[in-house]
Amino acid sequence: MTSTTFSRPHRIRFSECDPAGIVFYPQYFVLFNDLLEAWIDAIVPIGFAGYITRRRFGLPTVRLEADFKAVSRMGDDVVLSLEVVRLGGKSLSLSLRCTGVDGDVRMAVTQTLVTTSLDTHRAIPIPDELRDALTTQSLNA
Amino acid sequence: MTSTTFSRPHRIRFSECDPAGIVFYPQYFVLFNDLLEAWIDAIVPIGFAGYITRRRFGLPTVRLEADFKAVSRMGDDVVLSLEVVRLGGKSLSLSLRCTGVDGDVRMAVTQTLVTTSLDTHRAIPIPDELRDALTTQSLNA
Amino acid sequence: MTSTTFSRPHRIRFSECDPAGIVFYPQYFVLFNDLLEAWIDAIVPIGFAGYITRRRFGLPTVRLEADFKAVSRMGDDVVLSLEVVRLGGKSLSLSLRCTGVDGDVRMAVTQTLVTTSLDTHRAIPIPDELRDALTTQSLNA
Amino acid sequence: MTSTTFSRPHRIRFSECDPAGIVFYPQYFVLFNDLLEAWIDAIVPIGFAGYITRRRFGLPTVRLEADFKAVSRMGDDVVLSLEVVRLGGKSLSLSLRCTGVDGDVRMAVTQTLVTTSLDTHRAIPIPDELRDALTTQSLNA
Repeated sequence: MTSTTFSRPHRIRFSECDPAGIVFYPQYFVLFNDLLEAWIDAIVPIGFAGYITRRRFGLPTVRLEADFKAVSRMGDDVVLSLEVVRLGGKSLSLSLRCTGVDGDVRMAVTQTLVTTSLDTHRAIPIPDELRDALTTQSLNA
Repeated sequence: MTSTTFSRPHRIRFSECDPAGIVFYPQYFVLFNDLLEAWIDAIVPIGFAGYITRRRFGLPTVRLEADFKAVSRMGDDVVLSLEVVRLGGKSLSLSLRCTGVDGDVRMAVTQTLVTTSLDTHRAIPIPDELRDALTTQSLNA
Repeated sequence: MTSTTFSRPHRIRFSECDPAGIVFYPQYFVLFNDLLEAWIDAIVPIGFAGYITRRRFGLPTVRLEADFKAVSRMGDDVVLSLEVVRLGGKSLSLSLRCTGVDGDVRMAVTQTLVTTSLDTHRAIPIPDELRDALTTQSLNA
Repeated sequence: MTSTTFSRPHRIRFSECDPAGIVFYPQYFVLFNDLLEAWIDAIVPIGFAGYITRRRFGLPTVRLEADFKAVSRMGDDVVLSLEVVRLGGKSLSLSLRCTGVDGDVRMAVTQTLVTTSLDTHRAIPIPDELRDALTTQSLNA
């Protein structure tokens, strides 16, 4: 699979920073979750909210590795990016990055998500709706 | 003072919602704080981060009244808006709203902020840099 | 109704503070929501989680007024308190406070919550389970 | 170094859960940061707030690996625990866990933190105040 990269510019906000004046690290995961949602909105017709609420599918994280390489300060303009690096039967892995406008990587995450049913919280095969979107995305890349 | 309204579209995110599937109400205040910051970025040349970090000015909230009129659900498209309704000597009052795309007001806040020195956490006259921006904004309205 | 006051000590945490080194004000509402939950756990046998998840009742905020009187800094020991000040047919009003260990009020909120069905998000009469707990609490006061 | 384990009971709160009714995963990192702070309060006389604010030392995360093994639902009683697994020259590594009351591990993190100066955001040798506390803690174990 040749994946495309989905990215969004973001300015680091006061609400995301800690008393040291830099991003409070759990906030990076909130930012990446919002990015994931925007990405699903962009590729799956029913959108992220529909995928969760109407289809009753979940997409919980089962593993992540994160490297924090440089601090981001309030007001910094960064780019948040997401790329699919593995597509399995019931899971997928993403590479997520927060990069400064000069291209310096502030933080990088590899994250594995599992497709679940929200009724059972158990893994299910990646729903066709999502798999088709991921495949089409690759073909267009 | 005739004030303009500053507004931004926003899609309600998973990270902002609670187990009832609607916006967890403290998150509205985070959204409005981010809006305030975007507004200061737009009208004060040094921007919000510069105002806080370089000028060492603060802008804490001293009073707010909020009415929650209708729920916002994950995936809803809303408009967040901000308007200056009072400009005092050491404080200003804002009217903030979250409105659905059909114009229905979901939530409305009147909020009073005080201009402070971050070194003393005491009120100071509204700095010229901010007052000039507010006045210019009015003239242009 | 003679209400008792429910209170909990709390130390202001790094995660609750902003780049100015003081509590980021939306965090007060998170703290008070956690306090509300602990209070329901203490007075309603099924607990807050049961009230929401098993009974499918909601308790959304419809109005709040907040006064921020003094800042709270990281590491400060405070007391968070909650008192019922009005018990209506489909709503109740709470007085919430964050007080420093010397008794200085840092922040005070009056908040009105409505009892709802989570299936319709509409107001319902205060469920007996909650009303009984509130009445018993008063008798014991 | 033989390290002791620092642990705290915690009840999963509404504010920590997402529309799927389970802990929103970035919240685990907030919980663990609060635990880290309580731990520093317990072992370093000046406390976490003093360590950050008065000493101007930082303790940013440079790497973490997290495994999410089972969901935690609103109302669940869990134990959050922290253990030092490596003590380096300018960094330390922690093993953090969220465990259900039946002993089932919900989530496990290995996290590396660097000791920094908040003035430069650069790594510095672990300050004596922290190193002494860590060594004493081991001797007492």
